[in-house]
Amino acid sequence: MPPPTATLSVASSSSSLSLFPFSSYSCSKQPQLRFCPSPTPTRLTHFTPLTTPNYPIGKLMTPSAVSIEKETMISERPHTFLRETDGKDDGSIRARFQRMIMEVQDSVCGALEALDGTGKFKEDSWTRPGGGGGISRVLQDGAVFEKAGVNISVVYGVMPPEAYRAAKAAATDLKPGPVPFFAAGISSVLHPKNPFAPTLHFNYRYFETDASKDAPGAPRQWWFGGGTDLTPAYIFEEDVKHFHSIQKRACDKFDSSFYPRFKKWCDDYFYIKHRGERRGLGGIFFDDLNDYDQEMLLSFATECANSVIPAYIPIVKKRKDTPFNESHKAWQQLRRGRYVEFNLVYDRGTTFGLKTGGRIESILVSLPLTARWEYDHKPEEGSEEWKLLDACINPKEWI
Amino acid sequence: MPPPTATLSVASSSSSLSLFPFSSYSCSKQPQLRFCPSPTPTRLTHFTPLTTPNYPIGKLMTPSAVSIEKETMISERPHTFLRETDGKDDGSIRARFQRMIMEVQDSVCGALEALDGTGKFKEDSWTRPGGGGGISRVLQDGAVFEKAGVNISVVYGVMPPEAYRAAKAAATDLKPGPVPFFAAGISSVLHPKNPFAPTLHFNYRYFETDASKDAPGAPRQWWFGGGTDLTPAYIFEEDVKHFHSIQKRACDKFDSSFYPRFKKWCDDYFYIKHRGERRGLGGIFFDDLNDYDQEMLLSFATECANSVIPAYIPIVKKRKDTPFNESHKAWQQLRRGRYVEFNLVYDRGTTFGLKTGGRIESILVSLPLTARWEYDHKPEEGSEEWKLLDACINPKEWI
Repeated sequence: MPPPTATLSVASSSSSLSLFPFSSYSCSKQPQLRFCPSPTPTRLTHFTPLTTPNYPIGKLMTPSAVSIEKETMISERPHTFLRETDGKDDGSIRARFQRMIMEVQDSVCGALEALDGTGKFKEDSWTRPGGGGGISRVLQDGAVFEKAGVNISVVYGVMPPEAYRAAKAAATDLKPGPVPFFAAGISSVLHPKNPFAPTLHFNYRYFETDASKDAPGAPRQWWFGGGTDLTPAYIFEEDVKHFHSIQKRACDKFDSSFYPRFKKWCDDYFYIKHRGERRGLGGIFFDDLNDYDQEMLLSFATECANSVIPAYIPIVKKRKDTPFNESHKAWQQLRRGRYVEFNLVYDRGTTFGLKTGGRIESILVSLPLTARWEYDHKPEEGSEEWKLLDACINPKEWI
Repeated sequence: MPPPTATLSVASSSSSLSLFPFSSYSCSKQPQLRFCPSPTPTRLTHFTPLTTPNYPIGKLMTPSAVSIEKETMISERPHTFLRETDGKDDGSIRARFQRMIMEVQDSVCGALEALDGTGKFKEDSWTRPGGGGGISRVLQDGAVFEKAGVNISVVYGVMPPEAYRAAKAAATDLKPGPVPFFAAGISSVLHPKNPFAPTLHFNYRYFETDASKDAPGAPRQWWFGGGTDLTPAYIFEEDVKHFHSIQKRACDKFDSSFYPRFKKWCDDYFYIKHRGERRGLGGIFFDDLNDYDQEMLLSFATECANSVIPAYIPIVKKRKDTPFNESHKAWQQLRRGRYVEFNLVYDRGTTFGLKTGGRIESILVSLPLTARWEYDHKPEEGSEEWKLLDACINPKEWI
């Protein structure tokens, strides 16, 4: 029996952990104040769309369109999540991108465990009958890290034809069929305990469509997205400069326009509109990137992902044992509250994942272990807390 | 110079603190990934829509339609927020509802301060040139309460005519003008420190439209909404029974169908869909209520609001000093995390308030002082934590 076809919606997953294990439990449209009977945990299944907010499919697909084949939890991580046909072609961008994110997951988790000294990553892996799968790794309540999640996933899905403009353009007299797509990505949020050690988020993803069955002449589409951004509670200018310098160095190897463009994109994306402030001090963010050579962009994404360790680990090493008092901790917790607000209210991947009934533990592993909200808290003008807030309200050029 | 006309959107405010002080700073529709320049705190103004999710205006009005005159912070709470013309008529429902919510704010805050022993409420009041205003009261980090907010507000606004079906029906050959409305309400969230003492939320509101200027024959509309619900981290069956009994007693004085109907409505509304669980153990919730005598419903809302103290205070009194350990506290904090998820993701008042650029401190005072998210936390089957979770997944009849 052939595996059931997966029809997916896709959403940006830039800030959340990009792992949206959708429920096989589907719920018809409900009137206001009605709800679906509660799915039990055992009915939940895993799925991870990894995409881009700017591509048309992001706008045309709605969470209600999602249906996805059930995942199978597996006890050991496989060598590959690619389908046989893909897996054999080690030179394909799919295969090379998958290898890259697996290697980065290994190297980042290794570096984090070494730095933490105590905490160990817990690993959860799954596959799907039609191909694809994912590996979630979470280190919680370590010596250095409060919560650290590093997840990868590979998805084979089908997008509605109306989302795929190229197919329509190529065969206007044909009613185009669903467009198969492939997506793969790595996504991570790292929350240290020490209030002087910053939170880090990074996410790199690759997306590819196959030709539509009913519009064979339609071109295949592909694009890259991702970014790395820093969210400290206190500013150490040397740390922020170091972090941004590493991002710029990675960008400059490919195009001198990348860093200024992706730095601004990052400041714009991680904006908590109701606060009038960014969640942190930025970094780089890009999406829908396909107007460069594909090999070049694969190298660029690889360079960015490989820059996570040199950009972040030295900062945490330097700050993890800095003495702090209750007031420093409370301020860190207030900033963690902002992180929660951004992820639950604005992050497109998270909000999409929640609406589609995803496996919540994977979607919300990006949330900090603890957070705080004080009524009408205003840092004293000129204080260290005020300086951080000011930099979140008025993004700065750090280098 | 006449005061500028306020054109408002209205949204349900059942779970949040119902005080949505909108910004006078307006932002035109932005493309994805763009944002408005940050409004500074001094530019923010206060506004409080208090309405109902089921009434047509709730569906037709969008946050982008909101524009509102700027509020003025005042040092002393006024005797009334009603316009002169309303204020003179002490027998009107508006005037009597306002008096009721002011009295309930006083009595509830008094009872909470007496119970807390240490914490004091901080009061912020404001008015608007065209009438209306509000009083926010927050007690933070007391001996018993982690965070307690009790807010009232009165709003004079204008709704788009397309939201007001009655006006259209009465004058189909006229293009109806904007429909003025009046809304008033009290809203409160109380988070105690002790993990065995439950969180309480209550909110009661009254809504009234004037006849449309261009459709003078159109009938005036009015309705009541509100509810009181309990969110414990641990179940003490006698507490939950006591709480629900008081709700039932208040309901039964008016209509024996009220309690079963509003109990179910409450279970349905406070549903965290992505978790498949309610945020707590319910209580009563109703909205859009106008199919009974107006005097009767005013008495009913008053009875419900006056039931808050007898329903809640004895429970906190009994549990505030119960010894607890770190694991009890951690579970309470995890449930606080659920509270945050419900309010930021689902509560219509909160999400509407955030989208319209409201004064965040008033909107988010419903959030707990502290919250927690653990990856893949599963209470042991049969444990006290598991029993609470089970009751949130499968709502029970408590009496």
